[in-house]
Amino acid sequence: MKNRIYNFNPGPAALPISVLEEIQASFLDFQGSGMSITEVSHRSKWFDAVINDAVERIKRLLALDERYHVLFLQGGASLQFCMVPMNFLSHGGSADYVNTGTWSTKAIKEAEIQGKPIRVVASSEDKNFSYIPRDIAFNPDAVYAHITSNNTIKGTQWAEFPDTGGVPLIADMSSDILSRSFDANKFGMFYAGAQKNMGPAGVCVVIIRDDFLDMVPESIPTMLKYSTFAAKNSMFNTPPCFAIYTVQLVLKWIEETIGGLEKMAETNREKATLLYKTIDESDFFRGTAALDSRSMMNVTFRLPDEELEKTFVAEALENRLGGLKGHRSVGGCRASIYNPTPLSAVQALCDFMKAFEQRKG
Amino acid sequence: MKNRIYNFNPGPAALPISVLEEIQASFLDFQGSGMSITEVSHRSKWFDAVINDAVERIKRLLALDERYHVLFLQGGASLQFCMVPMNFLSHGGSADYVNTGTWSTKAIKEAEIQGKPIRVVASSEDKNFSYIPRDIAFNPDAVYAHITSNNTIKGTQWAEFPDTGGVPLIADMSSDILSRSFDANKFGMFYAGAQKNMGPAGVCVVIIRDDFLDMVPESIPTMLKYSTFAAKNSMFNTPPCFAIYTVQLVLKWIEETIGGLEKMAETNREKATLLYKTIDESDFFRGTAALDSRSMMNVTFRLPDEELEKTFVAEALENRLGGLKGHRSVGGCRASIYNPTPLSAVQALCDFMKAFEQRKG
Repeated sequence: MKNRIYNFNPGPAALPISVLEEIQASFLDFQGSGMSITEVSHRSKWFDAVINDAVERIKRLLALDERYHVLFLQGGASLQFCMVPMNFLSHGGSADYVNTGTWSTKAIKEAEIQGKPIRVVASSEDKNFSYIPRDIAFNPDAVYAHITSNNTIKGTQWAEFPDTGGVPLIADMSSDILSRSFDANKFGMFYAGAQKNMGPAGVCVVIIRDDFLDMVPESIPTMLKYSTFAAKNSMFNTPPCFAIYTVQLVLKWIEETIGGLEKMAETNREKATLLYKTIDESDFFRGTAALDSRSMMNVTFRLPDEELEKTFVAEALENRLGGLKGHRSVGGCRASIYNPTPLSAVQALCDFMKAFEQRKG
Repeated sequence: MKNRIYNFNPGPAALPISVLEEIQASFLDFQGSGMSITEVSHRSKWFDAVINDAVERIKRLLALDERYHVLFLQGGASLQFCMVPMNFLSHGGSADYVNTGTWSTKAIKEAEIQGKPIRVVASSEDKNFSYIPRDIAFNPDAVYAHITSNNTIKGTQWAEFPDTGGVPLIADMSSDILSRSFDANKFGMFYAGAQKNMGPAGVCVVIIRDDFLDMVPESIPTMLKYSTFAAKNSMFNTPPCFAIYTVQLVLKWIEETIGGLEKMAETNREKATLLYKTIDESDFFRGTAALDSRSMMNVTFRLPDEELEKTFVAEALENRLGGLKGHRSVGGCRASIYNPTPLSAVQALCDFMKAFEQRKG
């Protein structure tokens, strides 16, 4: 594709080129409606087909049973940080939180702002959030246990979800949803801003179980209640139609072009393995996450010094490899290799890294 | 444009064809970035240019002084219904509300759910919300007075904003923002879901004055505080990039293609005048709003009976005139003629109405 770059942005991030091409081709006339997808009513047969197909595909891909509801909200994962305790801790009880980095810290803060009783049962702050805590003692009476499944900034990920002794998990899966299969039954709810693994910015997917919906109190504002969205197929008010449509196309791409979640996970493993191998075989690049906690999605690494890191990022961009700068709060380098990033992009990056090391190492 | 229809949808609604074409043309490579606008980082020079340009254009178009801040939020006007009392009635005091229809009623409900002290100082519910109340006695000690500037469902609009005796106005302008000039100085805040007059679904523009920002309490969740968005140029977390980009292009279209807000208002008056004239000169079509309260944006009308209304909507669509069904809560017909709807579309509709009347009247 002429003039396109290899995009390693952490989110908004790369989308499958076939998805972008389909959006482009139908942009002035969606499905013969004579309107753009941005002009079609959300109360039309055209949009009904989009949102219903997106819901069904998520249910199939994640093998969700009928207890789970797929909702589309706005406000990103950040709005979920306050909605979770607001919706589930209004009848007393407390919740457990595991702190594995910036986003977990924010989730904890939004519960505390509301004066909700929560307990931070584990944290990896002692080592700059470079690992995922093990052997956590969850409180058996907790209403839920909140985790961040993948830590975009620090480059760590739960390889397996923790044993909570039956306490339902709630997870922020913004940066690894649909990247691998997992047993959803452990979860009361999970949520993800779409702009990393499954779409553009502007929509947050929430998957919530019946018993968690039942906990939603009457007394909170309508737009902050999960039950509002569940009762109206996410259309109590006008939903972010374009973002949901793009998500639908990415889901279709995962199912029909990639071949499902197992295949998607296989490609993701292959990409991460190749990149970590390049780092580990080098004395020049150095991974920042503990080996057993490495993220398959965000590969964080350092070079011998900050000056070299700057040069690396700049020269990579000249070679059409974009988005490799680490998060402004931690520095270093980061390659985000979400679902849409093809293996060829990672191969190109590894080739560039080796050549860069030869020149500068 | 091949296969396009005349789109009278109430929102999401028609967008200028030149805007859609520009989005389409650059969809795989935005501004030479090698990425789609849906893939570009919100922390990039590309997106900075988009959001800053959108803010500046809104300030120019509405002649806002430096006390006003332009914010982009998610959740639609419906989320604003709860955020307004949450942000401005936390230090005591009460607010006045005027009830002019479905959306005002919802705004009132969200204040009441939170137990905030509000007073409904006027309502047109006695006549099925077919008019805008006059000579309202606002409470001089009210923190703000909330109105809905245009009522999408009932087809009424404030021709002039009420004299509140100095109480700052807050208005839901979702369905008439940027359709005409007005004195913003009366307003502490106004807000609008973009999907009618200025963009696609998925972003809500909030314009807020310094003294209202100063009222925001510390104790509410971060994503529900206007100050969070004001402090970070609407990028505390990932904003809805594509929707903001589309809004930017519509703003540019209003300024550069239409020629500014006076010209936009002139075209809007011309469109509405033509359509109301067609209704008023007929014994077949009948407008539902009081003459002095008619909306320039949503023209609501009835036919002699419901069967004819069904036929009218169906035959109109066969003639490529879409979206003419009234809101499901009121029935009848409605033509939404927002900024992007060209005069030629209204002319085509009037021609069809006259021909339909000749055949069926």
